[in-house]
Formats: sequence, C-alpha cells, structure tokens
Amino acid sequence: MTVTDQYLKNNEEYAARFTGPLPLPPSKHVAVLACMDARLDVYRVLGIQEGESHVIRNAGGVVTHDEIRSLAISQRLLGTTEIILIHHTDCGMLTFTDDDFKKSIQDEVGIEPAWSAEAFSDLDEDVRQSLRRIRSSPFITATTSLRGFVFDVATGKLAEVKFD
Amino acid sequence: MTVTDQYLKNNEEYAARFTGPLPLPPSKHVAVLACMDARLDVYRVLGIQEGESHVIRNAGGVVTHDEIRSLAISQRLLGTTEIILIHHTDCGMLTFTDDDFKKSIQDEVGIEPAWSAEAFSDLDEDVRQSLRRIRSSPFITATTSLRGFVFDVATGKLAEVKFD
Repeated sequence: MTVTDQYLKNNEEYAARFTGPLPLPPSKHVAVLACMDARLDVYRVLGIQEGESHVIRNAGGVVTHDEIRSLAISQRLLGTTEIILIHHTDCGMLTFTDDDFKKSIQDEVGIEPAWSAEAFSDLDEDVRQSLRRIRSSPFITATTSLRGFVFDVATGKLAEVKFD
Repeated sequence: MTVTDQYLKNNEEYAARFTGPLPLPPSKHVAVLACMDARLDVYRVLGIQEGESHVIRNAGGVVTHDEIRSLAISQRLLGTTEIILIHHTDCGMLTFTDDDFKKSIQDEVGIEPAWSAEAFSDLDEDVRQSLRRIRSSPFITATTSLRGFVFDVATGKLAEVKFD
C-alpha cells in the first residue's frame, strides 16, 4: 500500500464529516504565497478557515512567472487584495546553489534545465527579493497589503521581514 | 486592522501550542500538487500530518516550469517519490480563456503577459495534461507513484482520474 492509498483512506473520513460547499471567491480576500516545506501547514500556522484565502506554494516560496500568474488570477478574477509571503528557517533552498543543482541534473540526464533553481543564501533578503518581484510586476495591481515573514520551524512563530 | 493582522494574532495562539522542530525531509516521501483554491485545505483533505509531505500549489494545480522546478528539488534533494495531483470542481480556471484574460490585462495596463494563464475547459482532461507534463519531464526521475484526482467541493471527496 502506498502513502497515496493511505491518504485516500483519510479522505473518506474527511468527506464523511464534510459540510460544503463554500463560495469560490476567497471570503477574506487574501492570497498566501509560501514554501512547499512539509512542516509549514499554512492553514494552521495562520488560523485560516476553509474558503478564506488562496494558498500558493513552491520550493522556497519564491516568485517566478508562475506565481505572478497565480496572483494575477487571484486578484483579477477572484478579488484578493492582501498578499502574505512566507519563507521559513531550516529551508532546503539554503543548502545548495543553482549551479550545483543544474550540474547534478545535467550529469545524470544529459539535459540542463532552462530554469533557475532559485536557491538562496539569506532568508530575509530572499523574502525582500520576492516582495520586490511582486511589487514590480505590472500584472499585480490590486494589492492593499503586501508583507513578508519568516516562519521559525522550531517555535512555530512568524517574524516579519522589514521591507519598504 | 487587516486580515493579515488577524492571521498574525492567530499565529500567536498556534505558536503557544507548537511542539517542533521536525526534520526537513518529508517523512512520507510524498509531494502533493494542488490548486490554490481557498476551499482545498490539502492537509485536512488528505489527513496529512506536519512534516510528512511537500505541498505545491498554484492557480489550477497546473504544471509549468516552476512546478517542475519544485518537484525536481523535492525528489532530488529531499527524497520524495510519490506525486499526488489535485484539481477540483467549481474551479475558477474553468470560467475564462487565456486569450480573454491576457486581453483584459493588456487593455488595463498596456502590457500583455508573456505567460499563458493556463485556463482549461475540461477538468479530467487537464488533470491528465498535468500528469503527462510531469511524466514527460526529463528532470522528474524518482517517481514511484503518480496519480491525479478531482476534489469535489460539494462533498469533500476525491475522485481519481483514469490515466495510463
């Protein structure tokens, strides 16, 4: 039995207690952009209830074209206005470099990715980098609040990163 | 007070009950790729505990370069092998076309995005499209299980999409 099968069994219990459906647009008008890290249960960390906020996640919680795509759809079609960005301590993205990662792939499969791995060496600075990429995008125009945080995996606390 | 401020207050309660830290690599070796939809609380829907599985999310739960980047990092650096893909009923991506979305942006800000919005008109077929993009990527080489599902926002149930 795979873990996928175990999770499908869990879903049967979830569905048995389910009380939907909720409306499509996020009721709190928030989009959260966070790292994919397994320890970062975004709904629990922020006390988000189902239906309130979009949650976008990727390796590092970085901002590439695809996060701009998701945020543009979130704001333009579904009415979100606040953006919360979350990186975290002990992040895998701090443990390698783009060059080494791409070389390891090329060595194994013979093809070098055309994309950057988006590794970083300074958490706070990468939060600011991501905030700047959002702020400078011509496609993200409805933002009323844009703030960035580092989640501490040892304490569960969010620390805001200074940005202006 | 913004919603962001309310969520930060919630985080204080979360941190007060927090019992970390957990290890960095996902203990169940799973990566979930799902839509950003506010009603889809992936941890609850699948019964995922903190620390078990990577969670990658975007508008639609589609597969672009950035999801391949996240999955490559997940598999190569953090040892995941199972991939679970989740789209859902009543998805915003079913309500528009790429051309209309890009034209509305161009009309407003004068710049046409260089990226596709990745809208789709058939849920099951887009799950298969996403699965195919993962399977055909030369950078995703450690997969032992790759399955796709549609989450029903009215019942909370996952329905598997046939794929081979």
